[in-house]
Amino acid sequence: MRYELYYWPSIQGRGEFVRLALEAAGADYVDVARRPRGCMPALLRLIEGKEVSQPPFAPPALKAGKLVIAQTANILLFLGPRHGLAPASEAGRLWTHQLQLTIADFIDEVHDTHHPISNGLYYEEQRPAARARAAHFLKSRAPKYLGYFERVLGADPSGPRHLVGARLSYADLSLFQIVAGLRYAFPRAMPRLERRHPLLVALNARVAARPRIAAYLASDRRVPFNEDGIFRHYPELDTKG
Amino acid sequence: MRYELYYWPSIQGRGEFVRLALEAAGADYVDVARRPRGCMPALLRLIEGKEVSQPPFAPPALKAGKLVIAQTANILLFLGPRHGLAPASEAGRLWTHQLQLTIADFIDEVHDTHHPISNGLYYEEQRPAARARAAHFLKSRAPKYLGYFERVLGADPSGPRHLVGARLSYADLSLFQIVAGLRYAFPRAMPRLERRHPLLVALNARVAARPRIAAYLASDRRVPFNEDGIFRHYPELDTKG
Repeated sequence: MRYELYYWPSIQGRGEFVRLALEAAGADYVDVARRPRGCMPALLRLIEGKEVSQPPFAPPALKAGKLVIAQTANILLFLGPRHGLAPASEAGRLWTHQLQLTIADFIDEVHDTHHPISNGLYYEEQRPAARARAAHFLKSRAPKYLGYFERVLGADPSGPRHLVGARLSYADLSLFQIVAGLRYAFPRAMPRLERRHPLLVALNARVAARPRIAAYLASDRRVPFNEDGIFRHYPELDTKG
Repeated sequence: MRYELYYWPSIQGRGEFVRLALEAAGADYVDVARRPRGCMPALLRLIEGKEVSQPPFAPPALKAGKLVIAQTANILLFLGPRHGLAPASEAGRLWTHQLQLTIADFIDEVHDTHHPISNGLYYEEQRPAARARAAHFLKSRAPKYLGYFERVLGADPSGPRHLVGARLSYADLSLFQIVAGLRYAFPRAMPRLERRHPLLVALNARVAARPRIAAYLASDRRVPFNEDGIFRHYPELDTKG
């Protein structure tokens, strides 16, 4: 079965967590809005919900046969056991999903560093609040989240190579993306944070070196980071903390 | 099996979405930190993660036998099919969970109306940003979310009485809580919003009238709304939009 991924074509955004899972699995998929001729109308029709009785609130959405699944973590919940990216047991699936939902909270907080007041305003219209929020993020929230995942890696009875047991899961892929994104957004602040989280840094390197992920990252299927996505590099927000 | 719910004893917060599901199901559970003698140490030990190899990032957490499950939506994912609060089919469970994750996003945005800069600061330290964020929330975001759920209710082939098919689900309970909370936080703004969303208002009334929910709401197991939770009534944030 060929999956269809519906997501904005010009950003990594939340769709990237799905792209990474599909790529790591070697799944057959088409990134609908990034096809050569572009398919934004198909994406917009799906979101406007006139073609489906169970419309998504927002992209990303994944079509899998007759199913249309939205919400990033929900898509990964679906893909995980089908592609060996989550344990088969219920307890293992719930734990992997719990980690993913905490990653989703982390991502929301990264996003709000540059949009603390409203998505409907430009960054330039909310700079003072963004500076305040980003400073708190770098001082308190990023260390709290990164420290949590470092602790989870260290506490795993199967060793610190993966978040869940001894195998790659979609949570590992998402955590890779977070570290990559934070490096892009906060190049001044991240080295200090990385020094305190060696297991996370090692996980990031291991994921990046996986053949399918390395091939994906080097391809033009990987949208470059930019200032329209979740992880944006605004030097004035990148304080040393 | 008696469940153990671990959550802050003095607020509804995110734990309330779990409490409502347990109450609607008539499940056997103990709200650990609200027991007469208080059990905050047990809650804190669970969060500090020294007793479990898979620690929660934050409460709520549910102990179910040997399982310790955290993240509100994940707990509901677990409880749903066990207590008839989600469909048995995979497609139905994914759809219910997708709605719950969109509700979780909505809740985050409600919270950030009073804490747009940092959880580590008091509301009084971030009032100007809170006023700006709350105004955008009431003008744009609340109508967008409420409009989405109204549309989902209207599009359900089984009728508009429930979000998912013809039976109560945990998503209905959570949406009830959102309407109740918005009424508490924004008594000036909500009447106008309610007029545009009659199906949501009717769903709220139907959930409140269910015998188990009505009994719960009238009991002292229901923590009153207050200014420490997600839904806070600060009159200066409650503009007419």
